[in-house]
Parts: sequence; structure tokens; C-alpha cells
Amino acid sequence: MRLDLDDWEREALERLDPMAGDYYRSGARSEATLAENRAAFARVRLRHRVLVDVSQRSTATTLLGHRVPFPVVVAPTAFHKLAHPEGEAATARGTPTLFTLSTLSNTAIEEVVPAAGCPVLFQLYVYKDRGACRALVDRVVAAGAKAIVLTADAAILGMRKRDVRNRFRLPPGLAMPNVSGAQLGTAATDSALATWVRDSLDPSLGWRGLEWLAGIAGVPIVLKGVVRGDDARRAVEHGVAAVQVSNHGGRQLDGGIATLDALPDVAEAADGRCEVWLDGGVRSGTDVLKALARGANAVAVGRPALWGLTLGGAEGVSEVLELLRAELDEAMALAGCPDLASIDASLLA
Amino acid sequence: MRLDLDDWEREALERLDPMAGDYYRSGARSEATLAENRAAFARVRLRHRVLVDVSQRSTATTLLGHRVPFPVVVAPTAFHKLAHPEGEAATARGTPTLFTLSTLSNTAIEEVVPAAGCPVLFQLYVYKDRGACRALVDRVVAAGAKAIVLTADAAILGMRKRDVRNRFRLPPGLAMPNVSGAQLGTAATDSALATWVRDSLDPSLGWRGLEWLAGIAGVPIVLKGVVRGDDARRAVEHGVAAVQVSNHGGRQLDGGIATLDALPDVAEAADGRCEVWLDGGVRSGTDVLKALARGANAVAVGRPALWGLTLGGAEGVSEVLELLRAELDEAMALAGCPDLASIDASLLA
Amino acid sequence: MRLDLDDWEREALERLDPMAGDYYRSGARSEATLAENRAAFARVRLRHRVLVDVSQRSTATTLLGHRVPFPVVVAPTAFHKLAHPEGEAATARGTPTLFTLSTLSNTAIEEVVPAAGCPVLFQLYVYKDRGACRALVDRVVAAGAKAIVLTADAAILGMRKRDVRNRFRLPPGLAMPNVSGAQLGTAATDSALATWVRDSLDPSLGWRGLEWLAGIAGVPIVLKGVVRGDDARRAVEHGVAAVQVSNHGGRQLDGGIATLDALPDVAEAADGRCEVWLDGGVRSGTDVLKALARGANAVAVGRPALWGLTLGGAEGVSEVLELLRAELDEAMALAGCPDLASIDASLLA
Amino acid sequence: MRLDLDDWEREALERLDPMAGDYYRSGARSEATLAENRAAFARVRLRHRVLVDVSQRSTATTLLGHRVPFPVVVAPTAFHKLAHPEGEAATARGTPTLFTLSTLSNTAIEEVVPAAGCPVLFQLYVYKDRGACRALVDRVVAAGAKAIVLTADAAILGMRKRDVRNRFRLPPGLAMPNVSGAQLGTAATDSALATWVRDSLDPSLGWRGLEWLAGIAGVPIVLKGVVRGDDARRAVEHGVAAVQVSNHGGRQLDGGIATLDALPDVAEAADGRCEVWLDGGVRSGTDVLKALARGANAVAVGRPALWGLTLGGAEGVSEVLELLRAELDEAMALAGCPDLASIDASLLA
Repeated sequence: MRLDLDDWEREALERLDPMAGDYYRSGARSEATLAENRAAFARVRLRHRVLVDVSQRSTATTLLGHRVPFPVVVAPTAFHKLAHPEGEAATARGTPTLFTLSTLSNTAIEEVVPAAGCPVLFQLYVYKDRGACRALVDRVVAAGAKAIVLTADAAILGMRKRDVRNRFRLPPGLAMPNVSGAQLGTAATDSALATWVRDSLDPSLGWRGLEWLAGIAGVPIVLKGVVRGDDARRAVEHGVAAVQVSNHGGRQLDGGIATLDALPDVAEAADGRCEVWLDGGVRSGTDVLKALARGANAVAVGRPALWGLTLGGAEGVSEVLELLRAELDEAMALAGCPDLASIDASLLA
Repeated sequence: MRLDLDDWEREALERLDPMAGDYYRSGARSEATLAENRAAFARVRLRHRVLVDVSQRSTATTLLGHRVPFPVVVAPTAFHKLAHPEGEAATARGTPTLFTLSTLSNTAIEEVVPAAGCPVLFQLYVYKDRGACRALVDRVVAAGAKAIVLTADAAILGMRKRDVRNRFRLPPGLAMPNVSGAQLGTAATDSALATWVRDSLDPSLGWRGLEWLAGIAGVPIVLKGVVRGDDARRAVEHGVAAVQVSNHGGRQLDGGIATLDALPDVAEAADGRCEVWLDGGVRSGTDVLKALARGANAVAVGRPALWGLTLGGAEGVSEVLELLRAELDEAMALAGCPDLASIDASLLA
Repeated sequence: MRLDLDDWEREALERLDPMAGDYYRSGARSEATLAENRAAFARVRLRHRVLVDVSQRSTATTLLGHRVPFPVVVAPTAFHKLAHPEGEAATARGTPTLFTLSTLSNTAIEEVVPAAGCPVLFQLYVYKDRGACRALVDRVVAAGAKAIVLTADAAILGMRKRDVRNRFRLPPGLAMPNVSGAQLGTAATDSALATWVRDSLDPSLGWRGLEWLAGIAGVPIVLKGVVRGDDARRAVEHGVAAVQVSNHGGRQLDGGIATLDALPDVAEAADGRCEVWLDGGVRSGTDVLKALARGANAVAVGRPALWGLTLGGAEGVSEVLELLRAELDEAMALAGCPDLASIDASLLA
Repeated sequence: MRLDLDDWEREALERLDPMAGDYYRSGARSEATLAENRAAFARVRLRHRVLVDVSQRSTATTLLGHRVPFPVVVAPTAFHKLAHPEGEAATARGTPTLFTLSTLSNTAIEEVVPAAGCPVLFQLYVYKDRGACRALVDRVVAAGAKAIVLTADAAILGMRKRDVRNRFRLPPGLAMPNVSGAQLGTAATDSALATWVRDSLDPSLGWRGLEWLAGIAGVPIVLKGVVRGDDARRAVEHGVAAVQVSNHGGRQLDGGIATLDALPDVAEAADGRCEVWLDGGVRSGTDVLKALARGANAVAVGRPALWGLTLGGAEGVSEVLELLRAELDEAMALAGCPDLASIDASLLA
């Protein structure tokens, strides 16, 4: 019986090929940030309200103009076919809110969008080759991507010890169809992914790069990887639709601040002028409630969707997200919050 | 030799049927709040006074107008016949202060009040069916209940993993005689109790519901489940006799603030205009002293009474409460406090 | 090789009869205060000075008018013959500073004073029978006691679980010769010591009792057990020569503040008008330095002297105290403090 | 595969003779400061910047007028021939930044300077015999030492339990050629090193001693061992080129403040008037970034160089330092810092 996301994680890691499981679970270097993301949630204490009429509850909200039944979206993660043969198409099909497809997917966006049960966003790494990058943006928008989620915390790839020890590589047969010509599979002395990032992505991006992207995208932009108020303020000035407080699931800068601890500074800077999303360490409906109380409009989950995909394909993804929805609904009922608008900082001790 | 409540708990859990023991001991979900209630007591440090004449000590006080020998009352807990065949009648008989009978008792209030060695209060869940609820209130007051303890933190039932895994249900032969027609016993796929709560109780209660109850009860009302000053202030305005700082023993909202940490805010808001009780994590006379120093008029214990009932029936309950009284008396002697009035915040580091 | 007091403790506990070892080592109830006393020292961080001339160092000071080679005195502890057949006479002989004889010693003060290598103080519990108490004070002063150390934190005896479980009692042949007629030895159902305290000592003492004692003693009075500034201020007004910040080695009120954490408040209140001593958790020369930096004039050690006595009689006591002196001297050299006057709060982070 | 310095340490300790490994790894007494140095780094959380152009990165800086490729120098540690037969000559050869030779080296400075791949500094203990000390200073400057690093936190030697238990001594054949006539090798009852320090070094040094040294040295002076702002201010007034925040790797005063925690006070006092270096607990490039963000101009590593030397001679030293450089470069890229000037306190949570 899987009663919470820890149960799903434990079981999924037993099922997965160790190299894939390690790739999904690992964090950068000492994994301090990975652990800190969750520890930050555990430190928060809630002060529930009593005698609020919670007989009619709604977890629904609007994100980027899309009505979603609850404020938990799927964060971009790479290589879903390591988890399940149907890969990202299945994950998208199982998602009832918003699904973010990674540049590093094993499934082409043209296959994912029609399969999806919800709007699909596209996570973008900007290539050194801007022509190729523009072609990719045009392609994904044409394919139906509703927003570009620009990853801003990966100028280079963070080092994950498990991947280096495992000499992580994609098994034969898995490709990266969003990336023309790219193929990970033969690195011998280091993480093949790190090599690809070093060779292909543009560490000189800058705010100029964001302007360039905004000029060509024609869809809203979510800036992912922000943990500072000053960066959030600048992002607002650049017209982003949302900032996503993220440290890449603890996979980039080791020793980074927990996203939940970075959230208040970012939310204050955004000041309602753009949406604020958060990923990193969300493992229960109570966590969602805590993030919303600290100022997030939505949270994103990456690994949990992968555990669902591993254990049950699209159905598993759906079960995992439904678990989070139900837990959030329960936490709201117990906290005295009939809807998302009633969740405020007074809930926090 | 049982020297403290930990000894009682350990031995009782060995004696109890595992399903019953799990039901009594468990907290919501990750059990973070369950643990935090006790951790909050452990964090407090006392500053004793010296050279106070403590040769004549009194732990006595008045609660809801009733003289009690010490400020430790029995909190409402469900299903005492899981612990002992005499059930709530025995618990009430062993209590020398105030006993709170749960709506979810295995013994009818008409049987409990005559058996009790002290005033009996009645814990109320408000039903969707207000007529049935009013009938219940009339019945318990007629039976001699001296106050209604309105549970305000259970709009829905918190999820306890042990109960779900155990498919918790009442064994054949145990009934809920305060609840006309209710019978827990045949749930197959989930906690039977959760189902009952969902079907029967009213999550739309609200402050209006409290007004309604106050209008019909004719006895003092204790509002149980308050952890915020604003709620306490509103409760005072609604004329409650007491607020009970409680998170339902860590069984409802996981991640909730420890009751001891919520206490100062509530006590300040109450400002002497109503009594302030606290339950959650009280396991020694020193804990009682700490709660009183932070502003409580009384504490309530739930599980400890069940351990006493399990191991010795009415006599066991009596021994457990006497242990707390003796420990409180000892702590007061050592802290330089001859009576409850001398316990103040200066004792806290 | 015994390199620090932990080595001494470990070895002594292996050597001692378990009932005696438990009596010496134990703290009240959960032993939270016992642990906290040491934890408070571990939390303090030192900021050493550089380029101070520490070629000539002195740890000497004056306590109660007596010149001592270093500011570590022996705290009163009961029943030294449980550790060594020579008992308190040996402990006193091995002490180069000040030795405090407990009322509950196995050796008469008339035997201890001549054997001692230093001034002897007498720790007093005030009896209900004031005539007997006055006779005892007259007797110990006549025998040469240089001060009365009045224990103020033992209105009743704190409960120590180990002693209750062991049914602690003195073995045949050991007496309490400072206490006329008293004999612990035959308790069957509880700690014999708790019984004796309950029957004999005066919990109504009060500040009046201190006045009475000051009027009859004719020697300086040290008030032991103070953890609050207000009590220290009042003690100064009553003319005490010193207050001893103490929680009775964590053996009385469980959950009490660490003595090191109580020290600043007491030292500020004393403001140089009386000496401030501290006991509780001192286990190294660095601990002594920390206590002095927080405002103590001296520290007292109880258990460490017993470990020395257990393992080497008077010589062992001497070795233990010499170890603390050498460690303090080393810590002062490394902290840039040539003498006690140069130890100030700027050493504390 | 050695992915981080913990891997190097683990493997080196397996390779080393236990007496040597203990000598290198150990800290004073309880080793609280040793542990705290690392814990302080673990407590710091970083707030990365996004969308900074980090395509061109530089870790280079100037220290004491010398251009170095990255701000990690080698701290002085004693007795490198315990790790490798080539000793300090190999360590210096493997160092691409600045190498600090210890007074207590097994290799003469005349041999080290020509072998070194970088400028060599000389760590000085001032002897009681000032003539001998002056001769040593003249000798090392003549040999090419570019600065004197004056150790100011070793008026006496801190006690390390492992060394005392091991009766630490140099094996036959290893000498201290910077110290005329000195030979450690035959101590029977205590650490031979402690004896040598007690007999030879001058604990009366003082600020006068620094003035004397500055007058004769003719090269810049780094004052090592400073953990207080007042001492740093005085050092600036005495014209030092740098202060090195250090607690001697946790080997002197047990219970001392972590160097990272002492850094802000020192950096504020220095206020750019001298360089600020830090050693103690630096074990990763992220640690370097944290120290720089708190105000250090450079960090020094001692033990890590020894692990490199143990496992690979000069090449091993080089690999260890290159690992730190690469990690720092990675951390800067991920934190949004293209160069050292862009590292500021806003990176710290």
C-alpha cells in the first residue's frame, strides 16, 4: 500500500535500473542542497484556523492563464524512458495540471503534446548555436508548447558523484529527439551528460539572452532557477510570466539555499507582478500548503512524477499527482482554508 | 516498577492488541506534530527559585467552577473498551479531576456519569444532522455533563498511516452508544473511522455553529483545537468558558505547531477572560509546570490515561494521574512554587 | 592512560559497585538537566587572543579570603566511603584549594578538618529541628569549618530513577556521623535517602532561615543552588559571601536551566558584591575558562573528585584536580590570558 | 575514483602509518574545534545569481604581490616525510599557488625553494633564543622565502590525545633541518613535540616580538592564528601584509570558534588594509567560495595537501589543488560569479 510519496519513492528505486535510479535521485556533490530542500519543509510549523466553513473546498487556480485543478505542476526532468517505455508521453498523459517537457526528453514534443492531458510547457536550455536554439523554440511553439521554461541555473552541469561513478549514459535505443543530432551514449571516463552540456549549452546567456528569447518565443516565459529577490525583480522587468524558485532539485550548486527558504525574498520582490512557482523538496500536500503560505502560486514536482511513471506509467503519474491533490485538500480542510486565496502567512509559526 | 509515564506507555503497548495500540499511539501522516508536541516541552528550561517556603504546598485550583485537586484533566479519547472491558466508566471512575467523555466512546454517557469520581464533560463532534446533534447535546446535559468540549480541529479526520494499514475497525461487540445507529466495524479498504467522520460530521460548522451550540447547550463550552491568538480572541467574544490549545494529539494536521509553542499567543489573547487549557505531549509533572508557566490554567492528558486504563482499569487511571500530581508537586517544591498562583513566566529561561 | 576526566569517569564507573556508581552519576528523572549542564559548555566557542605574553602565568586567586592555587574547589557530595574506605578524609587531603564537606558524609568533620590539605567548608541542610541544626553549625565551626555552604535547592529530594530501582541504601558499616542518630540502611520500597530528607529537612526554610543561619554561623555563608538574578540580588542583600550557581548536578529539578546558561544573569546581579561560584558539568580546563569568561569567580566539581577518590584515594583526587589546573593553565596560555583577571567576556563568541 | 577530498582523505589514512595518520588528522583534546571548523562551512547556504555571463571565468588573483591562478595556498604543516620520502620538496613542487614551509619540516628550505613550482613562504615559530631565530630568518630569506608566516596561536603546544597515546615521535632518519640541532625521536612519556615546543619556543613573544620580527625580516609578514577583530586591527597597525584566520586546524585551543565564523569580524577590522586569509575546514571549492563571500582574499589548506602527497607525491599534491581549483571554478559558474571580484556577501543566506 503506497500511502505517501516516500512509499512511491522507495518502491520505484527498487524497480529501476540502478544507473537510472541514481540519475533521478542524486544531487550535486555532497547532496547538502538536496537534503536541505526537504529539511526546510520539515522546519516549518503550521498554525491552523478553527471554525472556518470548509465544507466547500477548492484547490483550483489559474497558472499562466490556464485553469488547473490544483497548483502542482510537473517540473522538467530528463530521460523518462529510463523509467518507462512510453516515456514523456505517458507522464504528460497522466498530468492533469501543467506538464513541463525537458529539452533532454526521450520523446519528441510533437509526440508529447497530442498525448498530454494538459497544457505542455517546454523547458529550454539555450545552445551556443543560437540558430539551432531559435529553430528549436519555433519548433516547440509550433508543436503546441504553451510556454518556455528557461533554465537559468545550469551554465554548466552540476557534478553528481553517483553519475560519475556509474559513468551515466543513455542505454542503446534511447535518443534525445528534441535535440537535433544529439546522442548520449558512449562516454567512457565521465558523465556523458556533463560533456554534452559543456559542448552544447551557452554559459554566456545573460539577461540579454532572456531578452533575445522573449523576442522570438511568442509564448510566456517562466524563468527557472531563481533564488534571490534581486534576480526576481530583474526578471519581472524583463516581462517573464513566472519565476520558478529552484535549485534544480539540489543538482547544481552544492550548498545552495533551500528553495523554501529562498521563497519569501523572491515572492516579496515579485510582489504579484509575475507568478512565483517553487520546486525542490515538495513531497506532500502539507509541503504544498507551506509553500503557498510563504508566497508561491504553485509548486512543481519532478522526482515524484518519475516514481509514478516508473511504477505505473501514465496511471502512476496520475496517482501520484492525485495523492498530492488529496493531501493538499486534506491539509487545507484541517488548516481552515477553503480555497487557495485563504492561504496566507498567518498559517506559519 | 513504573517510575514515569514512559514506563506506563511501554508496558501498555506491549499489553494492547496491536491494532488498538496503533490507534492510540499514532499521529497524522509523518507524525511530525506528534513528535513536536513532546520536543517543545523538552526544549524549555526552568529557572527555579530558592528559599521559598514550600512546606505547605497546594496544587489545587478551580476549573469551570469545579474545585480540582490538581490541574490535570482527562482529554477526550475514543474507544476505551479497546483498552479495558470496563471502558470509559473505569476511566471516569479513576479520574479525580475532570473527565472528558468522547462522542466516540464505547460507553454511554448515562453509564459514565454515575460511575465517575469527578465532573464529566462531553466532547462533541457536530453532526451534519443538526437535529441529531441537538438531541445528543440535550441527552448528555440531561445525563449530567457539566460542559461541552467542542472539537474544532476535525473538519475531516486526519490520516494516520497505521490505522489505514491496519484497516482499523472496532472489534465485534464494541459500539458507539453516544451516536445513535453508528457502528464501525466493516470497512474493508480504508479506516472505518475516516469514513464515518466524512459521512456524519459537519465541516461547515463555523463560528455560527458555535453560536448555535452556545444557544442550546445550557452548560459552559470549551473550544478545543485552538492554536492561534486570533481564534482565541474570537472564542472569548463568543463566550466560551475555556479554549483548549490542542492539535488533537498530533492526529490531524501534520506539520502543525506544538501546542506548547502555540500557548503564549493564545494565553495572551485570552488575557484571563476565559480559561486556557492545553493538551499534547504532557508526560510529566515538569511538563505541567512548564505549561502553567507559559500561561495555561490546566493541561489535559489523553494517551496517559489510556495506558493506565490498559494496565489497571480505574485503578491504573488513578495511579497515572496520581503520578502526574506527585510529579507536579515535586517540581513545584523544587522550583520554589508553593501554589499554582506562584507559577509564572519568570520560571522560564 | 587517563588523559581527561572522561577517562577517569569511565574507569571509575567500571571499578565502583553499581549501586554506588549509579548514585554518583545519576540525575533527576529524565536526566535532561544532567545532560544540559554539559551541553551548555559544549555550545560555547572561544575567541583566543594572540601575541600576549603568557610566559608567566598564574591561575591563583582568592576565594572567601583564602588564597588558592587555582579556582576549582570541591563541591559537596555525599557518601565518599562508597568510593574509598578513607572517604572524605582522603578527598579533603587530596584537595589543594577548598574542600566542601557534605552534611551527608561518612566521615565526621572532626576527622576531616585535620586531614585536609586545604580549608574545609561545610555544606548544610537545615533540619526541621532547628536546635539540632544550630548544634551542628556550632559543632562544625568549632571543628574548623571556614564557611557554611547552604544548599537551597533541596526543599525535597529530587527523584533519581536509578536510585529508586536500586533501592539505594548505605551498606552496613557506613554511617552519617555529622547527623546525630541518622542511619540510612533499611529502606525497602523506596530510596532511603529520599525518606530521610522528607523526614528530617526543613522545606519552609526561606530567606528568614538564611537570616537565622547568618546570625548564628559566625563564618561566611555560600548560598548554593541559585540560578536567577533576582535570587542572587536578594542573597547579596542578605550578606552572603558567595552564591553558587548550581542545579545540584542535575539531581533535583529535571528540566532546569544549565548552570552555565544561568551564570550571566547571576553574575550581573551579583555585580562584584559577592563571589560567584558555579558547579555542574565542568569537565575540563576549557570549561573552567568558559565559566570564568561568563563571570564566575570559581567553579566547583563534585563527581570528578569522586572518580579520583575511587581510583586513587587522596592521590587520585589530587591527580584529578591537578589535571584541571594543568588544563586551565594550558587553555589560558592558548587563549592569551596570563592570569584570571585577563579572562573576560570578549573571549566568548 | 577520488571524486572529492573526502575520498582522498579516506584513502590516505589507509595508506599512512597510523602514528603519522593520527598526527596529521588529530585535533586538540575533544577535537571540538576540529569538527566545528567543518561544521561552520556546512551551515552556510549560498544564494546563486542567474543569467550572469560566466562563459569567461577567472579564479586568478594576486596574493602578497604574487599572481596566483586560484586563491588556495598551502598552509604550513609539519613533517612531510612521514607522508612521502620526498617530503616538502615534493609538496612545494606540486603547488601552483603559494607554498608555506613549516619550521618543523623534514626538508631544508634551501632544498625546497629550488624544487618549488611557486613562491615559497616560511612559517616561523619564534625561539626563546632570539639570536638563533634571527639567524633562521636571515637564512630562509636568503634561501628565497618570499614572506614570513608568523604562527601566533602556539605559545605552547595544544594537546592531542592521539599523539600522547601514540607517544608520537619522528622515525629514525627524519630530521628537522630548519632547526639547528633539533631532533625529535626519543621522548618516552609524552609527545616529543610538546616537549620541544616547551623547551624551545618563546611564549612571551607579544606585539613587541612582531615589531622585532618586522624590523629584521625584510619580507612581508603574514600573522597566522588571528580570530578576533581587535587583534586584526592591531596587526594592521603593525604593518602585516596579511592576517591568516586560523585556529591551527583545531589543534591548539579546544573549544575555539570556527575560523569561518571568526572571519567576518576579522575581515571587517582589516577593511582592505591587509589581505585576509583563512585556514581550517576547507574541503571543497564550495567552501572556498563561502570563505571568499565572507571576506577572505584566500584560503589555505593543510591536511588536503598531505593526503595528496601521501597518495601521489608532487603529482598528488597537484591533483588535490587542481581538484579544489576545478570545484571553485564550477561553484563560481553555478553561483553566477565570473571572477573573484564578483563574489560578495549577497551570495550568503
